[in-house]
Formats: sequence, C-alpha cells, structure tokens
Amino acid sequence: MAVLLVAAACVGFGVMVLIHTQHLVTVPGVAGTLRHDHQQAPVLREAEPTTHAAAIVSDLPHQSAANCTTRWIEQRIDHFSWLPASAANATASASEPAIYSQRYLINDQFWDAANPKAPVFFYTGNEGDVTLYANHTGLMWENAAEFNALIVFAEHRYYGQSMPFGDDYMQHLNYLTHEQALADYTELIYFLQQEHNTADHPVIVFGGSYGGMLSAWFRMKHPALIQGAIAASAPIFGFVGYPFFKGDSYWKVVTDDASPKHGSAANCAPNVRKSWPVIFELAKTDAGRAKLGDIFRLCEPLTQESQGEALAMALLVAFDTMAMGNFPYPSAYLTSGNGEMPAWPVRAACSHLADEFADDDKLLAALRDAASVYTNVTQDLQCYKLPEAKDFDGIWDYQWCTEMLPQETYFDRNGVTDMFWARNVTLDEIKAGCARNWQTTPDPTWIRVSYGDEKLRSASNIVFSNGDLDPWSAAGVLHAPKGAKYHVLPIADGAHHLDLFFSHADDPQSVRDARKFEVGQIRAWIDDFVASE
Amino acid sequence: MAVLLVAAACVGFGVMVLIHTQHLVTVPGVAGTLRHDHQQAPVLREAEPTTHAAAIVSDLPHQSAANCTTRWIEQRIDHFSWLPASAANATASASEPAIYSQRYLINDQFWDAANPKAPVFFYTGNEGDVTLYANHTGLMWENAAEFNALIVFAEHRYYGQSMPFGDDYMQHLNYLTHEQALADYTELIYFLQQEHNTADHPVIVFGGSYGGMLSAWFRMKHPALIQGAIAASAPIFGFVGYPFFKGDSYWKVVTDDASPKHGSAANCAPNVRKSWPVIFELAKTDAGRAKLGDIFRLCEPLTQESQGEALAMALLVAFDTMAMGNFPYPSAYLTSGNGEMPAWPVRAACSHLADEFADDDKLLAALRDAASVYTNVTQDLQCYKLPEAKDFDGIWDYQWCTEMLPQETYFDRNGVTDMFWARNVTLDEIKAGCARNWQTTPDPTWIRVSYGDEKLRSASNIVFSNGDLDPWSAAGVLHAPKGAKYHVLPIADGAHHLDLFFSHADDPQSVRDARKFEVGQIRAWIDDFVASE
Repeated sequence: MAVLLVAAACVGFGVMVLIHTQHLVTVPGVAGTLRHDHQQAPVLREAEPTTHAAAIVSDLPHQSAANCTTRWIEQRIDHFSWLPASAANATASASEPAIYSQRYLINDQFWDAANPKAPVFFYTGNEGDVTLYANHTGLMWENAAEFNALIVFAEHRYYGQSMPFGDDYMQHLNYLTHEQALADYTELIYFLQQEHNTADHPVIVFGGSYGGMLSAWFRMKHPALIQGAIAASAPIFGFVGYPFFKGDSYWKVVTDDASPKHGSAANCAPNVRKSWPVIFELAKTDAGRAKLGDIFRLCEPLTQESQGEALAMALLVAFDTMAMGNFPYPSAYLTSGNGEMPAWPVRAACSHLADEFADDDKLLAALRDAASVYTNVTQDLQCYKLPEAKDFDGIWDYQWCTEMLPQETYFDRNGVTDMFWARNVTLDEIKAGCARNWQTTPDPTWIRVSYGDEKLRSASNIVFSNGDLDPWSAAGVLHAPKGAKYHVLPIADGAHHLDLFFSHADDPQSVRDARKFEVGQIRAWIDDFVASE
Repeated sequence: MAVLLVAAACVGFGVMVLIHTQHLVTVPGVAGTLRHDHQQAPVLREAEPTTHAAAIVSDLPHQSAANCTTRWIEQRIDHFSWLPASAANATASASEPAIYSQRYLINDQFWDAANPKAPVFFYTGNEGDVTLYANHTGLMWENAAEFNALIVFAEHRYYGQSMPFGDDYMQHLNYLTHEQALADYTELIYFLQQEHNTADHPVIVFGGSYGGMLSAWFRMKHPALIQGAIAASAPIFGFVGYPFFKGDSYWKVVTDDASPKHGSAANCAPNVRKSWPVIFELAKTDAGRAKLGDIFRLCEPLTQESQGEALAMALLVAFDTMAMGNFPYPSAYLTSGNGEMPAWPVRAACSHLADEFADDDKLLAALRDAASVYTNVTQDLQCYKLPEAKDFDGIWDYQWCTEMLPQETYFDRNGVTDMFWARNVTLDEIKAGCARNWQTTPDPTWIRVSYGDEKLRSASNIVFSNGDLDPWSAAGVLHAPKGAKYHVLPIADGAHHLDLFFSHADDPQSVRDARKFEVGQIRAWIDDFVASE
C-alpha cells in the first residue's frame, strides 16, 4: 500500500482532481475514486528515495534522485511571524523561532563555480515527495552538463520528508501555504550562495503543475533571486478573478483527448456521454445497483441512489487522469510508479469504446474496460472499492481549501461540449465542504490579489508551456500580449508537463522543439544576467 | 502628553534611533532620550486626525488629511496562514478568518477614471498614524490634479488606528511584519479596483523612510500591481548582507551636518567630540554627577556612573534627530507637531558651539543649549527626565527585534570620523536585548534573503532619493549600475525625505530639481503602462 499512498501524494494535480470529486459532493458517501486508498500518511517519510526511479521506462539511461545527495536545511516554520518556538513546541528554547528540517536533493557533478555563466537549476518542489521530481525532470538533468549547472531539487514543506512538527503535522497546518514554501526556497538559495559559491550565478527555476505555478510566482515575486522560470503546465489562471478559465473548457480538453482530433476512436466520446444517464437510471433501483456492482466489479454493493454519482465520478477521474497522463510512451508518472499506463492511454481506453453499442450493459462494460486502463493499471485487481468522502484527508485538499481554490466553475460540466453529465457547483457548496473538513474558509481571489490580473504586467523571463492534451492547459497562460517579456509555448500532442521529462524516442517533434526553445530561453536569460554583472 | 505619544509613534526612523539607544545599552538604566515619554499607547486611537495638519508652517496653503475621507477595509489579520478566527478571537465564528479594520484616507477630487493615464497615488504608510503622512506628503497632493490621480494614504497595521485585536494588540504582535503590511496594501489595491474602477490604471506608490522601504519592496515584489515607486530616504541596504552600510558612515553624516561642509560652525563638531570624555569623567563621582545634573538641568539626580552614557545618548539622539530634520525651513515634522525646530536646526544648534571653550563647564552648557534646539523645542521645559530602558515598549522596537534589525555595525561609532565616542555593539548584545524585551530572535539576514543582494537585479521603476544631510542616506541606494532600470537621486542639502514634502519658498534648488525628476519618472512610467495596455 505504501506505493499507492505515494501515488495519492505525488501526482500533482491528479490529486487535485480527486479532491474536486470530493467537493463536488454534498451528500456524504457520494464521492469516489478508483484508488484503493487516498489517505496521505506519515508513512511516506519512510519511503525509499529511489522507489520511483525505476518506474519510468525509457530507452535512454537517465539520472535520478539516486544521483543526488540528500541534504537538509533548517527552516523557520513561520517565515512571516516571529513567534518563539515555545509557542509551537514546548521543548524548544523560549526565544528561538520554531524550526523544521527541509529536505533537498543536490548534484554538483556538473557545477563549475568558476564559469560565470554556470547556473543553479532549481526545482521548486510541489505537493509530493521530491524524489519524484528528481526522477522525472529530465530537462534539468539533460542540460546540466552543457550549462555547468548545480542541480537542486527542493522539497515542498509538509510533503515527502519535509514535515514541520514531524508526525504531528496534521495538527499544525497553519504553516502550509505557498508563500511559506517560496520563503523556504529563498532561504535555501541564500544558503547555496554561501555553501556552493553561487552568489553571482543565475538561478533558473523549473516546475510542473503546482510546481510550475511556484516557479512562475517565484520569478514574479523574487526577480532579484531568480533569473528565469520554466513553468510547465502551470494553471496560474485557474482562480477567481481571471477571465480565461471556465470549467467546461477543462472538461472539453478531456473530451477532445477522447476524440479523433487526438487520435481516439470516433465513437468514444459519444459512448461515454451516453453512459451516464444509464448509470444514473440504474442507480435508482436495487436491481439496477446490483447490475452496476456486477458490471463495474465493485467490491461492495451499491446501496443508495447517490452512489451512482460516486461511481460516475470515479470514471470521470479515470478519464481526467488519463488525459493528464496522455503521454506518447508507457509511463508510471501519473500512477507514481504503481504500474505503467500504456502509450497514449486515452486512445487505449477509447479503443474499448470504438463500437456502437445497442446494448447498455455492453456499453457500460466497455466503459469499465476503458477506465481500467487507469483504474486497474496493475491488471491484478479483482474488484474496485469506491472510497467515501470522509476517507479523504490529503493535505493538498487543505491548500485548496485555503488559498489554492480554483475558480468554482472548474467543477462545472455541461454534457454538451464535454462528454460528462451537466453539473454546476456553487462556491457556497465548496465553502461548506472546506468548513466541514478543515475549518477553513478559502479565499478564491487571494492569488489574483497578490499576483495581479491576467495581463501579468512586468512578468518576464518565464516560459509558460502547455500541452494541448492536458486539461490543465485550460487554466494556463496561453496568450502573451505584444511586447510581453514572457513566453507562451503550446505543445501539440503534449500532456501534463511532458516537456519537463527525459527525452524519449517516441516524443513528438513538438516537445523536442519545445525543449529546444526552453533551453534557448535559459541561455538568453543567462547571457542577460552575465551582461548586467 | 498625547501629542508626545504621537511623536514617539510617528517620526519614522527617529523612533528607530530612540530604539537603538535602548539597545546600545546593556546596563539597565543607561539608555536615555530627552523625550518626556516614549511609551506608545492605545490612546493614539483617539487622536484627532488633523492634529498635525496645522503644525507645519508653510507659506503655501496646502492640503492634508482634512481633505480626505477616512475609510476602513476589513483585512485578514494573518494573510499567510488560515487559522480560523476562533483561534484568535473566541467570539468569532469558527471557520471565518480573523479580521481587523485597516484605516485609509482617500481623496478623489482629482480622479478621472475615464483618463487611461490617471494613476492611483498610493502612500505606503509606515510606523505611525497615517494622518502624519497625509499632512506632509506634498509631492502627492501637488501633482494630483495634473495627473488626475486618486489619492490614497494607507495606514500600516498596528499603528495609528489600524489595530488588530484592538486594545489587546500588544498581546498579538505575531502579525506585525512588513510582509503582512504589504499584503494589506495588495488587498486595498484590489478593493480600489472594484470600488473606484482603477483596474486598468497605474498605481504609483510613495513612501519615506520605512515607508520608502515599503514602497521600493512593494514594487520589487508586486510589479504587476505597482507601476512605480518613489522611495524617499529608504535605507534598504541597512541590513546584514549588504556591503555598503557601516555604522560609522551613518554617524559621519551626522557629524558632517555639524561641520562647515553643511554650514555649521567650524568648532561645532570638535567641541561635541571634546565633551564626551568630560561627561564620562564627571559621571564617575558624586560631585561630578551633581554638576552634570545642574548643567544639563536634569529633573532627577544621576546616581551612578553608567548614567553618564545615558545622558550622552540623549545628546547623541538630539544631534541625530536634528540631522534627519535638518530642513531649510522651520518644521515640526521630526517632533510630530510638538513644536517647530528652526530652519537648519543643526546649524542653529552649532551656533551655540562656535567658540573655543577653555572651561569645560561652559563647553557642556553650550552642548546643552545646542541639544535643546531639539530637546526643548517647545522652550518651556524646566528640566529633563532621562528615561530608563525598561520604559520603552514602542512596537517599532518589536519590528526591529524581528525582521527589521539593521546591521549591527549601525551602532558602531569610532569618535574619529564621527564626533561621538567610540562604541562597538555586538549582535549578541542586541539579541540579548530582544530576547529580554520581546522574546524574539531577530533575523538580520532575512531582508537580504528575500530581496536579494545589493545589485537589485530586475528592480525597475523605482526612484531612490537620498539627501546628503540625512544620516539614513548611509544605508540608502546611492549607486545604480549601468543599465539599471531604477534611479538614484542624490539631493544636496536635503534632509530626511525632504522631497516628499510640500514645496516651500526656502527649498534649495536641488530638491526642486529632484521633485521635477520624480514627476518626470512618474510620467514616463505611466506612459509605459498605457503603451503596454
């Protein structure tokens, strides 16, 4: 189970989707995913750092966390107030601030402090064990030698092994904010300046998904420290106050992945769309629910009508995750090492839905087989257990119930431009869930208040990359006004931050070009840095 | 007494100096100032908003807080964590964040939302009652009509009437940080966008002293929100990690003010320098202390040798304050309205020290008369009371004992390049004082960690102005590398942020030119803003 626990913690916005499914649901017990277990637990701290290193298949040998030294840096738990440690930890000395140990992984084999152009390549860790990013961020590894880069992967507080308050962290979530995480990173960068003589060297940050948001925001707020940012699949516009993002555009991308436009069977999306009324109708009766249990091989019988939506949500999550992970080669990234999905998993799923089904039972069986590309990725599960809403306590949900709340329309689906069922969710519903689960009131405009509007005035030296297969592209930065000093980089046939990964023989030309563009930008940023010294 | 209370709270770095005098002292009872009382107390909340409006003498009629509407905005007390209000306030609803009411002053008589170039002129309030800044920041008032500007003066939390936790604020100082204050300002700017239709208008921030640091940092961290900053007399390099600032350069400026270089009597600085050994020698004996009490007209007799340094510190503070307030016309700014110092107060003080004194008693009497230009500015005090270190609890000292700690060498004087007595202070001494008074451990590198090194890479659209009479110029930004997008603006014969004040017939040409330059920059920033829309 440990590997699955890691999965829940590490897959970035995959987790967000799980959480969304929870919050869609106002009736307890309705939500569901096809994960076995999505508790995040301190057991993660015992995880082998190289657990995931072998999980990704590549025909290139590549580097990983195993090539790094694990280091720790003492960080103030609260960078924004000065409470003495005694307020947080009774055993600490009264006037010292409370601290915790943050983990980072470092590789200096390519580093050359004597080369003024040598940069620090700094991964702004997101909501997961940092080894995952060290294992997968090929863009940093593959260019480190040429740039003489110092490689650093910084772990985000409250994830992996970087736990303020140790095992008691769940009782002290007040210090879990992206601002605190960025402040940790500023301290780490300062420390590296002393420790590795990086003071007059440019720092280039990399991140994907939430980590990409952190990279972009890091450059936006600390341009004196950060010379440039590769912000891959960073949905920074997914908040209230930004006009671009609408929930149905997110679900339209998922639907496009399941359409001929992106190589899937023509009948796939229509079949998926057709199946929901069948499921909801069956869920109304005992006999119908028994049939659903049989067809979908549920471990436990459905006992109430509302569980029809829980089942539907689990299927939606499967399509969502396969769309994010719609990579051109087999990958375990979206399962965090727990079995590889095949190349182009949405196409693989849709191959089960290529026919026209006169028989509803056959339609649902085909839907089950389609979803199982993800839900039974290990191909050894005998039955599915639908989790209950109350089971979920992953702490990304806390972040999301505070400052990371996406625009509420994210949850909206219309069943017309997308292949799901119409559903609207109000902010009040969301707030009620957050109050219940975390005793917090999310502030959905805070990101907009702090970072300004969609014009991103004064933002510079940032590449915002987005793959057109990735539903999160719907909340990404897709347009740059004339004269902007940041770049938008669309990647045809790209899923969730494919550009960050190691090069692969099956990569589409688009992502090869994208990486070339990114490397060119990094070089230009470094040249600018050195020219201004 | 209320006015003097305001004085202690409002004069910006004047307060810092008072605090420094406290922390110079490791022996209780040694520190002293010639203020009657430097407690900061909630009584400030009852202050008349126009108390100071009449206090500055000008031959131009000018605007002030009286021309503003007082408004309040609800702010989260903690922008960087999400503790429910119940954690901070037992009567609040469990899931709502704790809030407080921040005061701001606004004037919209010049504002024209239809003019795309119309800016918001936004004063980033510092450590004092915001009416002080509204009353004195002529640079905003005098240019508002021409720019069609919306004028806003924002009050800094924990000062004036903007008190989280009301009268209990002293028990809740954790939320007093400059980051929280800037976060308040981001929320206010967002609110103004909705309320006054300012969303597509440039925001120009203004600030002097600590307020100038806030203005510069605001632009540096939130360039998407802030189009440009006038950072007047902002000593942002006065922290550990910046190479420029040395304590003795600060005290050398004070000494230069008391020298012919800046129009003072040639014998002034030598006489001042000569007096300290006399004072310290007299402080050793009962008879000597009695004599000191007589000459300096102390309300209470000196009873121990260490009080000699307390007296000396009070005299040093007088020269320091007169140097900061070395304005070309009579001004009550540095006394916050409690009586005007004369034009060029250091020259006036030094006029008492123009002779050569064969007699030590006459030397000390002359020193007393020199200091009394400040210490007895109201000319009605019969005696001075030296305060004791334990009396002091102004909350600027808390800020300074957390993140605002200047480089410890600030305290150093050498008695050679300055006219004081040699004194070194260690960081350990300072930390001991902070632990004792506030149970905090200052982090003297935090500012450097967060804002980067002295190269101010990527900083743009900031004018750093510094007058050469102002000792804080020693910690200011005085050099801009080639290609820098910020500007340094030296002001000959300028004291502490003279450029922000209302125009005056006695202004030197340098400050007239400086204001012209600043207005030109503001215009250029606005043009750039509109061009990029």
